[in-house]
Amino acid sequence: MIKVGIVGYGNLGRGVTLAVNSAKDMECVGIFTRRDPNSLIPAVDFPVYSIEKLNDFKGKIDVLLLCGGSATDLPNTTANYLKDFNTVDSFDTHAKIPEYYSKLDKIAKENKTLSAISIGWDPGVFSIARMLFGAVLPNGNDYTFWGRGVSQGHSDAIRRIDGVINAIQYTIPKEQALECVRQGKNPTLKTGDKHLRECFVAVKPDADKALIEKTIKEMPNYFADYETIVNFVSDNEVKEMQKKLSHGGFVFRSGNTTDENSHLLELSLKLDSNPEFTGSVLTAYGRAVARMAKEGVTGCLTAFDIPIKYLSPLSNEQLRATLL
Amino acid sequence: MIKVGIVGYGNLGRGVTLAVNSAKDMECVGIFTRRDPNSLIPAVDFPVYSIEKLNDFKGKIDVLLLCGGSATDLPNTTANYLKDFNTVDSFDTHAKIPEYYSKLDKIAKENKTLSAISIGWDPGVFSIARMLFGAVLPNGNDYTFWGRGVSQGHSDAIRRIDGVINAIQYTIPKEQALECVRQGKNPTLKTGDKHLRECFVAVKPDADKALIEKTIKEMPNYFADYETIVNFVSDNEVKEMQKKLSHGGFVFRSGNTTDENSHLLELSLKLDSNPEFTGSVLTAYGRAVARMAKEGVTGCLTAFDIPIKYLSPLSNEQLRATLL
Repeated sequence: MIKVGIVGYGNLGRGVTLAVNSAKDMECVGIFTRRDPNSLIPAVDFPVYSIEKLNDFKGKIDVLLLCGGSATDLPNTTANYLKDFNTVDSFDTHAKIPEYYSKLDKIAKENKTLSAISIGWDPGVFSIARMLFGAVLPNGNDYTFWGRGVSQGHSDAIRRIDGVINAIQYTIPKEQALECVRQGKNPTLKTGDKHLRECFVAVKPDADKALIEKTIKEMPNYFADYETIVNFVSDNEVKEMQKKLSHGGFVFRSGNTTDENSHLLELSLKLDSNPEFTGSVLTAYGRAVARMAKEGVTGCLTAFDIPIKYLSPLSNEQLRATLL
Repeated sequence: MIKVGIVGYGNLGRGVTLAVNSAKDMECVGIFTRRDPNSLIPAVDFPVYSIEKLNDFKGKIDVLLLCGGSATDLPNTTANYLKDFNTVDSFDTHAKIPEYYSKLDKIAKENKTLSAISIGWDPGVFSIARMLFGAVLPNGNDYTFWGRGVSQGHSDAIRRIDGVINAIQYTIPKEQALECVRQGKNPTLKTGDKHLRECFVAVKPDADKALIEKTIKEMPNYFADYETIVNFVSDNEVKEMQKKLSHGGFVFRSGNTTDENSHLLELSLKLDSNPEFTGSVLTAYGRAVARMAKEGVTGCLTAFDIPIKYLSPLSNEQLRATLL
């Protein structure tokens, strides 16, 4: 049995908990939280400990599945965990991945531990598709579309506007752009050409809706470069939408092997629950890290470095006989 | 530069030739053929040698890309090449993969060479999707659909019928079955429920068309379990269709993380030229085998065992910075 520790119990921690529970080759040693452990009732009856107790589990956990966020949690804590444990995380601040990688690779090698970073669906499964597609069809273009799904960052940005009580923002792939790519037209598309942004906003009774709408639509980086739809709804309606955590997206590679012959490769995901699926991916990579660490691999890895056989509980013989 | 030898020059050999030519980090040492080398004019001006000359190139080729068929070529020749060379092949007789694997793994380890087998799009890219999807969404069902594309085996079977001059058979995914899977209904589907078979048949002037149609539709294994459409056309029309080697297909994984939340993962390929795309995949894995062999890896590998970073000419740093 692979002994797993789960660090953090937000939406992702809950998803990981469910995934570890259904993995027959895994055993959860504990959920580690910054909250009062007595206040936390997890979805599965795993032991809950204060994060301070983690040190007591040195040598008793094969892999820690880190369920913190990329903004502050992971950059500040992963390196420390790596001194004593193998880890998997979902670090997704694309621009900072090289720096994060270098730092963790050094620490892991010094401490003879193993870390898999940027695991989930993007980065993660989508990264595999982009890389594999590009390698097998070198003469072509990549297109990644996200959605329909909630962008937490954009929702937060709206909530910071004066007069706004609550808000949720959906990123939606533009049908026309999808169609254009599917037809192999190899268009040049900026992010704003590929996606529209739909906002549902609850405001104070005396708020200036026209001004709020203008403020959203003209917000640099977040909305200014996009077609943006603003709907004013009640706080209850926003809260209802916030319960649904569905997401998804598409990776395309469109290209040619000769002037006459073009090819289209497409990966798409439709997810009812972003954190439950991400948690499931993290758990599969937890299996890989535990196994590879046992084989003596140390350092920092991404989805590009890990042979996918390590993700499955099936033996290599079974994989070849049934899935090849 | 990676030094490549291409063995065999049919449709696949031509596809590999084009792919090696556009790979900036590869150099083709030669195309090796059983035919008279003077009779062969390849798509790219690479040297052509008789297969008997291959032994002269021991130590001068990093990887052989084997472009023979799975019925007789590969089972009879790969083991022999592996004594002196690293190889990549597209062995696709699914039922015989375990046996083929064991035989080659033994020979490769004895001779300290490296072999990647069953590379292409199915087995190959589709196998990666099936395995990865199953690992990250363990509670679910797989569906593989092939087509629209030519089945060489079924076309051959029709051509063996008395009175038939020429024939081509297209395997076509059933829209209704695709739709049912896409809606997450998790149907139980046999191959015959997923595909229909459309045949274009040229017959002798005095042939009994009704009898030929009946013979096709009732042919066990090949057509009896399928919805089959038979069209009678001229030999020229069949020949025209035989020039187009388009193919494609779909891999789905449909499953749940909880009772409420289901997910759909889909990979699809639309290929204008099956052999050109397969050749391009084989070439990328040639890069991987050449590199892994240089690192000292020996034995037999499949797409499940090879970290995808090895497929790309980009450095690991570039991959992490641009594609993760």
